[in-house]
Amino acid sequence: MAQPRLKHFGWGREGEGLTPAEETFVLGGIEQRFGSLAGGEVKPPRLEDIKLAPPRLEPPASLPYCSTEFYDRVAHAYGKSFPDYVRGLVGDYRSAPDVVAYPRTEQEVEAVLDWAGSAQASVTPFGGGSSVVGGVEPMRDAARHRAAVTVDLRELGRVIEVDKTSRAARIETGAFGPGLEAQLKPHGLTLRHFPQSFEFSTLGGWIATRSGGHFATLYTHIDDLVESLRVITPNGVIETRRLPGSGAGPSPDRLLIGSEGILGIITQAWMRLQARPKFRAGGAVRFADFFTAAAALRAISQAGLYPANCRILDPPEAFNTGAADGSVAIMVLAFESGDHPVEPWMARALECCADYGGKAERSDTSDAHREGAAGAWRNAFIRMPYARERTIRRGLIDDTFESAITWERFEVFHDKVKAATERAILEVTGRAGAVTCRCTHVYPDGPAPYFTFRAVGRHGDLIPQWHAIKSAALDAVIAYGGTVTHHHAVGRDHRQWYDRQRPPLFATALKAAKASMDPQGLLNPGVLIDP
Amino acid sequence: MAQPRLKHFGWGREGEGLTPAEETFVLGGIEQRFGSLAGGEVKPPRLEDIKLAPPRLEPPASLPYCSTEFYDRVAHAYGKSFPDYVRGLVGDYRSAPDVVAYPRTEQEVEAVLDWAGSAQASVTPFGGGSSVVGGVEPMRDAARHRAAVTVDLRELGRVIEVDKTSRAARIETGAFGPGLEAQLKPHGLTLRHFPQSFEFSTLGGWIATRSGGHFATLYTHIDDLVESLRVITPNGVIETRRLPGSGAGPSPDRLLIGSEGILGIITQAWMRLQARPKFRAGGAVRFADFFTAAAALRAISQAGLYPANCRILDPPEAFNTGAADGSVAIMVLAFESGDHPVEPWMARALECCADYGGKAERSDTSDAHREGAAGAWRNAFIRMPYARERTIRRGLIDDTFESAITWERFEVFHDKVKAATERAILEVTGRAGAVTCRCTHVYPDGPAPYFTFRAVGRHGDLIPQWHAIKSAALDAVIAYGGTVTHHHAVGRDHRQWYDRQRPPLFATALKAAKASMDPQGLLNPGVLIDP
Repeated sequence: MAQPRLKHFGWGREGEGLTPAEETFVLGGIEQRFGSLAGGEVKPPRLEDIKLAPPRLEPPASLPYCSTEFYDRVAHAYGKSFPDYVRGLVGDYRSAPDVVAYPRTEQEVEAVLDWAGSAQASVTPFGGGSSVVGGVEPMRDAARHRAAVTVDLRELGRVIEVDKTSRAARIETGAFGPGLEAQLKPHGLTLRHFPQSFEFSTLGGWIATRSGGHFATLYTHIDDLVESLRVITPNGVIETRRLPGSGAGPSPDRLLIGSEGILGIITQAWMRLQARPKFRAGGAVRFADFFTAAAALRAISQAGLYPANCRILDPPEAFNTGAADGSVAIMVLAFESGDHPVEPWMARALECCADYGGKAERSDTSDAHREGAAGAWRNAFIRMPYARERTIRRGLIDDTFESAITWERFEVFHDKVKAATERAILEVTGRAGAVTCRCTHVYPDGPAPYFTFRAVGRHGDLIPQWHAIKSAALDAVIAYGGTVTHHHAVGRDHRQWYDRQRPPLFATALKAAKASMDPQGLLNPGVLIDP
Repeated sequence: MAQPRLKHFGWGREGEGLTPAEETFVLGGIEQRFGSLAGGEVKPPRLEDIKLAPPRLEPPASLPYCSTEFYDRVAHAYGKSFPDYVRGLVGDYRSAPDVVAYPRTEQEVEAVLDWAGSAQASVTPFGGGSSVVGGVEPMRDAARHRAAVTVDLRELGRVIEVDKTSRAARIETGAFGPGLEAQLKPHGLTLRHFPQSFEFSTLGGWIATRSGGHFATLYTHIDDLVESLRVITPNGVIETRRLPGSGAGPSPDRLLIGSEGILGIITQAWMRLQARPKFRAGGAVRFADFFTAAAALRAISQAGLYPANCRILDPPEAFNTGAADGSVAIMVLAFESGDHPVEPWMARALECCADYGGKAERSDTSDAHREGAAGAWRNAFIRMPYARERTIRRGLIDDTFESAITWERFEVFHDKVKAATERAILEVTGRAGAVTCRCTHVYPDGPAPYFTFRAVGRHGDLIPQWHAIKSAALDAVIAYGGTVTHHHAVGRDHRQWYDRQRPPLFATALKAAKASMDPQGLLNPGVLIDP
């Protein structure tokens, strides 16, 4: 059955949004914190009220899978970043591509690239469009590009081949999360990579942005799940060898993973799969405060137990997601296995928690991850993007950023970044905001803290206000040693901080590599590097 | 106390070699298999009998850590590959560098690179010199290099900084395995990376070649243990940020890891460490045959148990290492933890083995890894390089190659590669050789098979004989889908197969990256790519 099409504004498909109960919970919480913002609620323009300039380019008849239809162009103008939403709200769709291609085969991807090259059009690869960093907005460098073509890969969504013995599958990268899992399920296998955007993002997008998924420890990044890649560049095809491991020179896959569409269009990947979990143990653990929870997180991570889930929420974050009353920090902890009962693992992890005064809310039931505080967190996590679409309409500056930092610098990093963000909110908006933190992923040498900030903004001024706050936050992230992004990618929004983080000679090498694959500079201009 | 210097020929330090008992075991086994080769035993030339051309270049007085001494030049002519030994045996030291530099600081590394650039000398980075793939032999491209300088990093061997909280240390890359571990031990930490060459190889060599270490599962390659790098290139310094994880663009570290000295000289690395193990369980398991052992290996690997050791030996390999009588395949299995008892893990792994008829030789003692079949294997593993130095002197073509392959192709791959190697031995030497296999590392999607081949060669003809056999073997490795190397690196010996394995556009990108870091093409010409 055909699904409704994706919204031209907001998260998900047409007709989707918060339920009345969720709306009461989310907006009620905002009003409790900031007072009523309902007076300032702005409606997004209806599709028919949006104005677009005519396309600068018409696709030739030989490319019938290319469209200049109004909806197609509007729906590919933006990702889901804060400035994307704000511009959408005021009907500013100048970023819309001239042409949207929906290739159905690799040959058609090649044909689009050839045509775009000959027409001097920039090319923006597009998966689900869930980028929160300006990674899918069509961009033209006026001196070099006469038009903008977006290549939407949704027609390339098949699982082509399943190797049950090696637990791997060859998958077209336009596959959305649910479709990908539905095709794997009959084989008893799962990729088990569930970024928050799972429903509305694609395998290719995950690989291009080094997305972070289900596993809080061990296989957190998609990087480790990639066995091999096929990538179409303007200069030809790259296909890497399917290997469980290799020591033959620098890894070609690792140059392509995280390349954010600037080197080529990833069309297929052999992905490492898991058995579907049969055994589970988990639940929530309460701690006196966030840093005490972090100490337990570190102990578990360094114990070599590799829990599937091991995330901590600071008290206000736990409160906002309905996981606790605001007086305690929460750890969401779970083990899972397709092979063996995991009680010994869970028992040792709970001992680590107890060493830091952690009190288990519950355990022992196999559905613990769907119940209690852990269940509340899980639900809020999945539904959050729908809430954000609403709060922004009320003029709330509502955004997140995530990083990673080694343990010995974590507390100072957390405090300095939080303080810098709070200070910027006060300076920019004249009143206090809310900055909360969770750790979404964890490594033996450090956690990945994820910050949410909310501030009462002013319609008409939201983008500069947001930019000033985000800049102060990311200045602190870089100054205190973190990464500008743990799993949201760089795109264009994070460029100025990424440029301070990555070694200059690596940028030179990346430019040189790009020139060898995309000599005309067609692909995603301005993302990661300047041409 | 100063150690004896490294041998100019053979493995290890002056005065080291097989004990009489080992000699009886190893050479006795060879004679049992091939008949006496003692008549053909060749002695390596004494140092004073080796002839070298005078150095083409004299270092300036401003670089007092540069040497043109006879021993220094001879001892840096070769690594430890089969053709290296054969050329050494006949006194062919034409490869010797003109100058050997022993920089004591990063500034001195930079000064050597500057001087080499101005003098148009090629530069060969040198760690322990244990390369078995032609990776450290000085090479000049006559059109571009007037001389050859080797940069030996042994003077840069300190652990500079230990972060116990994050379990990481900043280490100079000239550190040899034992020295590195000795410096970490007082902190209760260990890198726990033990390649076979551990005693005579360095951290920098491990990183440059993507070495494989102690852990048979999970953290097998050094890649995963690197937190950040400092690399001196002819065009400047690259320093990556110390991060537990990141999603900010393609990983700069992963372009440098495995770069085999062609992009720059790795001088420092922040390495991820482990707690020293306190809990152990392990032992050996006997299987009817190699493929049945492999089925159990796959089951354990896909169960998510992550044993520290999980290696299988085919019956003749088990016999050759003294681990069994030649009628059974052996799995060496061990769990270890610095945090918790590992019996539940071991118990489940033994159940996986029992599903395939595996019979545990022993378990339950914490020293099981040093006893019985597992202990025999462990000892043979460490001592093997000393044996090889002796067998080659007797004209035995005695070499290894290792690969990795996904499970569904493993049996065919094994059989075809083994058959191709056996056939080539017969054709080249006129008599049957011995080709044995073990799996040294294992991933959920496939194992890393490691082949040993032995054939009776003819002095004076050993290199072409070896080359013909190795070529047939690697032709099959590539034809049947494997990687040309799992952890021995590419160097120059594997170039022609690597060139067929890696995507052509990746080679173009790597050349472009090299040109941006080493525009004169000074570093390791001919390794990985042609200039």
